[in-house]
Amino acid sequence: MRVVVALGGNALLERGQKPDAEVQEENVRRAVEALAPLAHEHELVITHGNGPQVGVLALQSASDPHLTTPYPFDVLGAQTQGMIGYWLLQSMQNHLPDRQVAAIINQTLVEAADPAFADPTKFVGEVYGREDAERLAADRGWVVKADGTGWRRVVGSPRPQRVVETRLIRLLLDSGAVVVCAGGGGVPVVRDENGQLRGVEAVVDKDLTSSVLADALDADALLVLTDVPAVMTDFGSPEQAPISRATPSALRAQGFPAGSMGPKVEAVCRFVELTGGMAAIGSLQDATAILRGEAGTVVTASGSYTSSARAPRRT
Amino acid sequence: MRVVVALGGNALLERGQKPDAEVQEENVRRAVEALAPLAHEHELVITHGNGPQVGVLALQSASDPHLTTPYPFDVLGAQTQGMIGYWLLQSMQNHLPDRQVAAIINQTLVEAADPAFADPTKFVGEVYGREDAERLAADRGWVVKADGTGWRRVVGSPRPQRVVETRLIRLLLDSGAVVVCAGGGGVPVVRDENGQLRGVEAVVDKDLTSSVLADALDADALLVLTDVPAVMTDFGSPEQAPISRATPSALRAQGFPAGSMGPKVEAVCRFVELTGGMAAIGSLQDATAILRGEAGTVVTASGSYTSSARAPRRT
Repeated sequence: MRVVVALGGNALLERGQKPDAEVQEENVRRAVEALAPLAHEHELVITHGNGPQVGVLALQSASDPHLTTPYPFDVLGAQTQGMIGYWLLQSMQNHLPDRQVAAIINQTLVEAADPAFADPTKFVGEVYGREDAERLAADRGWVVKADGTGWRRVVGSPRPQRVVETRLIRLLLDSGAVVVCAGGGGVPVVRDENGQLRGVEAVVDKDLTSSVLADALDADALLVLTDVPAVMTDFGSPEQAPISRATPSALRAQGFPAGSMGPKVEAVCRFVELTGGMAAIGSLQDATAILRGEAGTVVTASGSYTSSARAPRRT
Repeated sequence: MRVVVALGGNALLERGQKPDAEVQEENVRRAVEALAPLAHEHELVITHGNGPQVGVLALQSASDPHLTTPYPFDVLGAQTQGMIGYWLLQSMQNHLPDRQVAAIINQTLVEAADPAFADPTKFVGEVYGREDAERLAADRGWVVKADGTGWRRVVGSPRPQRVVETRLIRLLLDSGAVVVCAGGGGVPVVRDENGQLRGVEAVVDKDLTSSVLADALDADALLVLTDVPAVMTDFGSPEQAPISRATPSALRAQGFPAGSMGPKVEAVCRFVELTGGMAAIGSLQDATAILRGEAGTVVTASGSYTSSARAPRRT
């Protein structure tokens, strides 16, 4: 099978952890322990988030007195592709000494006319008081919005249209390599009126990019791995219960918030609807069980909807 | 021909320039304009330095209050591979829409017993007064040395033994891709007693790595491109004159300072001695002329030694 696995940025840096290299390297080692068994049996593409990491580098860059303007988000995203790609590459090589591992820098094409640029919604970087936030907005051309009681910068999160290096990734897979790519959803680029690629200030959702990539690679399965064991019905309420199986339409019908589970659900549903393949959302530690259909929320084109809330528990 | 081109980090950020993304992107565009013609006719590997860039990120990391300890140099090197690799990748794709371009993250194996670790000599980061430097050395376990009138941190620059991803790079070349790799000489790693790869605090010379890589790839030519048109005899003296052709032994006999031209001369001589191929040192802007033997200092296994200081100038 050809499998695309999307790894949450929080899996590499948990909430509350210091963003030290040592901490993240240890998290990567644990992630790779969970993923390496998949590489023994399958063609494997690993994509990863970069939310916490790009936040750290963005703050560093914004406080650097040597820079006239902080590095834009395409450049910061590329820096995190290098850093996280290196950790995944090395750890994967240590686990799979007989396999080639390729960690590539890559770009994701978005549309310059995407409405996300006009109405940015993705929070990035530090929390400020309203006054500071408004001053920064004026000084730096940022858009800032209220996030809870504080104020933060927002950037656009346009829809990924295509992974620019798709052909290269396919070539690497065909030759037997494990491929690490689409870090942070890929460095966001547009094609200008002359057909030239150009970076843009945006953040692409890595699960949506992974879905687009899995489709383009004719993958058999897309696994979106995160820190929850499954998608929940009635999340946060006393009635919440894990969904173990669903069709895209049944899963979409649940409705999920745009910020968190929404893009993951959209990513897996889109992949299944377009390709008829299997997709799933679940915990990183359950990766192999999820692929066997024994854990997580497994989404397929047809079949029953199963949740322990609505059906007898399996014993 | 299979050609490895090593691009100086200063070509991407000239002395005195602000390290802004915009400035570096413009420099990369100019560099790629000079290199793209080579890719039309040859199999091309592009390696690059990262001296100025890793200096910027090291300072940012060292002043980040969120980190317990600044990112080590393997991690910083990987960040620059992402950033510079992205710029080269995009610019190369814009110049060569019909070719695949692969920018990969890669590691260079060094020996844990390399004497460079015990006696580090490579200056990195900012210049301090003696007192500040010694305090930082005590606080952070740095080694600091006098650099002119100021004091700076030094790290080891062990000899590159092998590019870990050599097989992958060969595969990419064989399939027709232009490959960007060995940024900053490659992320320095050692193999521990269990055979596992592990990053180390070091900086590898990118010209020496490029030489090792060119050898391993059976390259026909190695071009070390920098901001001078040729190697000079009696550099800095009134008698200085460009050397246009030399054998390795004739070039070595000149003697060059360890810090600047030394590793470049060592890199090209070693490649020619081991492979019998052609190597050259010269200006980035002359890349295509150098490969035709019409510019730069061209080093071959046999042939005459030519310098305008010792032979009549060609008219």
